Amino acid sequence: MTKSRGKCSFLRFLPTQELCTFVLMIFHDTIIALATPSGAGAIAVIRLSGNDAVRIASKMFHSISGKDLLKQKSHTVHLGNIIDGDRIIDEVLATIFKNPNSYTGENVIEFSCHGSEYIQQEILQLAIRKGCRMAKPGEFTLQAFLNGKMDLSQAEAVADLISSDSKASHQLALQQMRGGFSSEIKILRQELLDFASLIELELDFAEEDVEFANREEFQKLITKITKLLKSLLDSFATGNVLKNGIPVAIVGRPNSGKSTLLNALLNEERAIVSHIAGTTRDTIEDEITMGGVRFRFIDTAGLRETTDEIEKIGVARALEKLKKSAIYIYLFDINMMTVDEVIKETKSFSSSAKQIIVANKTDIASKERLQSIKSSGLEILFISAKEKESLDLLSNKLLEYAGVDELNSNQLIITNTRHYDILLKSLEEIIKVQEGIDNQLSGDLLAIDLRQALYYLGEITGEVSNDDLLGNIFANFCIGK
Amino acid sequence: MTKSRGKCSFLRFLPTQELCTFVLMIFHDTIIALATPSGAGAIAVIRLSGNDAVRIASKMFHSISGKDLLKQKSHTVHLGNIIDGDRIIDEVLATIFKNPNSYTGENVIEFSCHGSEYIQQEILQLAIRKGCRMAKPGEFTLQAFLNGKMDLSQAEAVADLISSDSKASHQLALQQMRGGFSSEIKILRQELLDFASLIELELDFAEEDVEFANREEFQKLITKITKLLKSLLDSFATGNVLKNGIPVAIVGRPNSGKSTLLNALLNEERAIVSHIAGTTRDTIEDEITMGGVRFRFIDTAGLRETTDEIEKIGVARALEKLKKSAIYIYLFDINMMTVDEVIKETKSFSSSAKQIIVANKTDIASKERLQSIKSSGLEILFISAKEKESLDLLSNKLLEYAGVDELNSNQLIITNTRHYDILLKSLEEIIKVQEGIDNQLSGDLLAIDLRQALYYLGEITGEVSNDDLLGNIFANFCIGK
Repeated sequence: MTKSRGKCSFLRFLPTQELCTFVLMIFHDTIIALATPSGAGAIAVIRLSGNDAVRIASKMFHSISGKDLLKQKSHTVHLGNIIDGDRIIDEVLATIFKNPNSYTGENVIEFSCHGSEYIQQEILQLAIRKGCRMAKPGEFTLQAFLNGKMDLSQAEAVADLISSDSKASHQLALQQMRGGFSSEIKILRQELLDFASLIELELDFAEEDVEFANREEFQKLITKITKLLKSLLDSFATGNVLKNGIPVAIVGRPNSGKSTLLNALLNEERAIVSHIAGTTRDTIEDEITMGGVRFRFIDTAGLRETTDEIEKIGVARALEKLKKSAIYIYLFDINMMTVDEVIKETKSFSSSAKQIIVANKTDIASKERLQSIKSSGLEILFISAKEKESLDLLSNKLLEYAGVDELNSNQLIITNTRHYDILLKSLEEIIKVQEGIDNQLSGDLLAIDLRQALYYLGEITGEVSNDDLLGNIFANFCIGK
Repeated sequence: MTKSRGKCSFLRFLPTQELCTFVLMIFHDTIIALATPSGAGAIAVIRLSGNDAVRIASKMFHSISGKDLLKQKSHTVHLGNIIDGDRIIDEVLATIFKNPNSYTGENVIEFSCHGSEYIQQEILQLAIRKGCRMAKPGEFTLQAFLNGKMDLSQAEAVADLISSDSKASHQLALQQMRGGFSSEIKILRQELLDFASLIELELDFAEEDVEFANREEFQKLITKITKLLKSLLDSFATGNVLKNGIPVAIVGRPNSGKSTLLNALLNEERAIVSHIAGTTRDTIEDEITMGGVRFRFIDTAGLRETTDEIEKIGVARALEKLKKSAIYIYLFDINMMTVDEVIKETKSFSSSAKQIIVANKTDIASKERLQSIKSSGLEILFISAKEKESLDLLSNKLLEYAGVDELNSNQLIITNTRHYDILLKSLEEIIKVQEGIDNQLSGDLLAIDLRQALYYLGEITGEVSNDDLLGNIFANFCIGK
C-alpha cells in the first residue's frame, strides 16, 4: 500500500548510493550564498544555513560587545566584525535564527555587510574556509521543503514571487505560497488515500465479499476531485496570461492611429514600460501594467491589400500576431471606413482571440458620421487616441476580457506548467477510476488506477517526489534563495 | 572665539530660513530607501530611519505571532506580513534597532522582503503613504554623522568601503572608517584650540603683557602638526594609486611579447579582470589584482621607427601612456636586442615612472645569449611569458614598487581629494602661524591665522561643516546608505 507522505518520502525513490550521498549532502553541510542581488549597494546579505551555521559564524565573527554568538537567542541581531586572523574584513550585523524557527528549518545566520563586491567575496571565501559550502540554486528553499516548512508548490511559488512584476503575477504567487490550491489538493488526496486503503483492505477479504469502502461516498469524492481538477486546469489559461502578460494585438489599416493609441495608453496609465525591439522592423511590443494586470501590446503593420512584396510580408506577420494574441483591438478611422467594411474585414480574421472594435479619431468626425456608425448596432468603442478621449472605456474592456474578476474573487488559479501537466495526468487517472466505478470493475483493478492518481496528486505538493523532480524545480531558482 | 564642535555646529553656518527647513527635514522626517542593490534577488532589504520609524512600520506590518512591534526590544527580528488594508503584499522579516543603538542613531526598521522589484516598489510606496519620505543619497549616513555616530571622514569612508574592489582600497577605506587619521587630527586640533583660547585670552589682558600660552609648548605642537600634515599629504600619491589602481605601461618593440605577458599575468594570478576598450585601437587596458593591489596594465603599440603615419600616432600614444604611468615594464626579446640597444631605447623615454626591464623569450634563447646579457650588470628580470616562467619575479617587483610595505605598516594614508585639498590649506595656515611665531607677531595677528587653521582642520572631521559641504559629500553616496 502506498503511504508516502511526510518530508522524507521521496528518499525511497533513490538508489541506495545516491541516497547516502544525498543524506550526507543535506544533513551535514552548512551552505552559504549571497541572498541579495549581485552588484554594489548600500548593504548586502550573506546567508548561512545548516546545523553548524552558528558555530561556523562564531569562528569568523567577533561581537563588538564581546558576546558569544553561540549563546545568543534566536531572532536577535548583533553588531560585530568579520575577522580573518588579525585582519578585519568588515563591520557587520549578524542575525541568528535557530532551528526550527528559520526559513530553512535549520540554524541560519544572516550577515548584513557593506555592499562592496570585494567584501562579499572575502566573507564568502572566509566562510568556505571555515567549513561552509556554496549553496546550489534554490537550495535554501529545498531545505525548507525537506524540513517540512512548506510543500513543493509553495516552494515553487517562492521563485514566482521573486520574479513577479505586476499585481496579478504577484498575487498569484503569494496565493500559491500561502497554500493556495495545494492545501485543497492535499485534503482531497488524503481522503482518496483513505478510500484506497479501504479498497485494498477489501482485497484481503476478497472471498468474503465485504465492502469497507462506501461506494456512494467514494463516488462523491471522485466527482469532487474531478470537478476541482477540471476547474484548476481551466484556470491555467487565465493564470498563464496573468503571469506572463496578456498578448493584445492592435490591428487596423495604415494610419488608423495604432501607434498613437499605444503611446496614449502608455501616458494615460503612467505604466511600467519596457520596450522590446521586435524581431521585424514592423512589429513593436510594449508592456503596460493597467489595473495591476500586465498587457503585452503588439503594434502591427497596417493591414491593406498590396502588391509590394515587403509590405505583404508585414501584413502576413500582423495577421500571424493576431492569431497568437489573447485579445485583439481592431482600430479604424471613423472618417475613412464604413461599418460594413469593418465587419467584412474583421470577419476575415481567423482568430479565437477576443475582439474589441474601436473607432478612432472621434475628435475630427462629423456628428452625422458618428451617429450613423453608432446606429449600426455593432459593439464599438469610440475614442480619440490623439486627444486621449475615452481611453478608460478601452482599458476597462481589456481588464474585463483579461479575467481580472476571477483573480479578485479568490478563485484558485494555476500558473505553473508542471502543475498543469500533473493535474492533466491526475485527471486522466481519476477518469479511469470513474470508468472503473461505472463498469463495476473489481477492487484490485480499481486499486491500480487509484495508486496512480494518488502518485500524481502527491507530486504537486511534493508528498511524492524524487531527486530528478526536485533537481528540475530548484535548478530554476536563483542562488541564495 | 571659534568653539564650533559637536554634532550641530554646522547649523550656525545656515541662514535662518534654511536652518528651519533643515531642522524640520532632519528631525521630523522618517526616511526610507532600498538598501540592497536594485534588481531581482532572493531577498531585498528596505530601511526606515526616524523617530517615527517603528510607529510607521507597525501600521503596515502584522506580526505572525500577533506581537505589537512597538513593544519589541531593540535588535530583535520578527516574522510577519506587510499589509495594505486587506491585501497582503509580502511575508517579511522586520528587524528593530532603537535609538541610539542603530546605524543612524535614530529608530531604524529593516524589512527583509522577497527580492521582487514589484514587491520592493509596493512596500516603498505603502510606507510613503503611511508617512515616510524617500531618502536622499547618503542620507542615512548623514544622519549617523549628525547624530555623532561617526565623524565626517568616517562617513566618507563608508562610500569608499562600498566601492572598494581590492584588498588595498578596502583596507584604506576600513582604516579610515575606523577612525584612521581623523582621530589623530581631532586630538591635535583640540590641543591647538586650547592654545588659541589662551592666546585670545592674552588679548583681553593685552596691557598687562602676560603670556598664558607657553610659547615653547606651542612651538612643539605646531611642529608636530606640520609633520603630520606633511606626511599625510605625501601619502596621497600612494593612497590614490592604491585606491584607483596603479597604472603600469607595458612598452617594447613589436613582437617582444607584450600581449602574451599580459595574458600570462591574467592566468597566473586568477585575477579579477575587467576589460576596458581603449580610446584607440592600439591601447588596451586590463585591470589585475595581485597581492591585494590593483594594477591597471596598459598594453601599448610596439615601439619602432616608422614612416607609416598611422603607426607613428600609435607609437606617440604609447610614449604618452608611458609618461602617465607610475611604473613601466620595458619588455624586449632576448634573442633580438642587445643590452646596449635596450639602454639606448629606455634612456630616450622622458618619464618619471619607475622602470622594470624585462627580458622575454628565455625559453628559446641560447645559453650564450642569456649569459652575455646577464653579465651586463643591468638590472633585468628574465622571463618567458609564453611558458609562464619566472612571472613571480615580475609580480614581486611590481608589488615592491607599488609601495605595499607602507600599506602593511599601518601608516596613515589619505585617498580622498577633499582631504588632500583641506590638508593643503591647513598646512598653509599652519606655516603662516609658524612664520608668525618666528617673526614674533602679536597675539591678535597670530589668532587670525590660528582660527583659519582650526577651521580647515575641523572641516576634515566635520567639527566645522556647512550645508554645501555636506551636500557635496553625501550626493556621491548611493541611495539607501
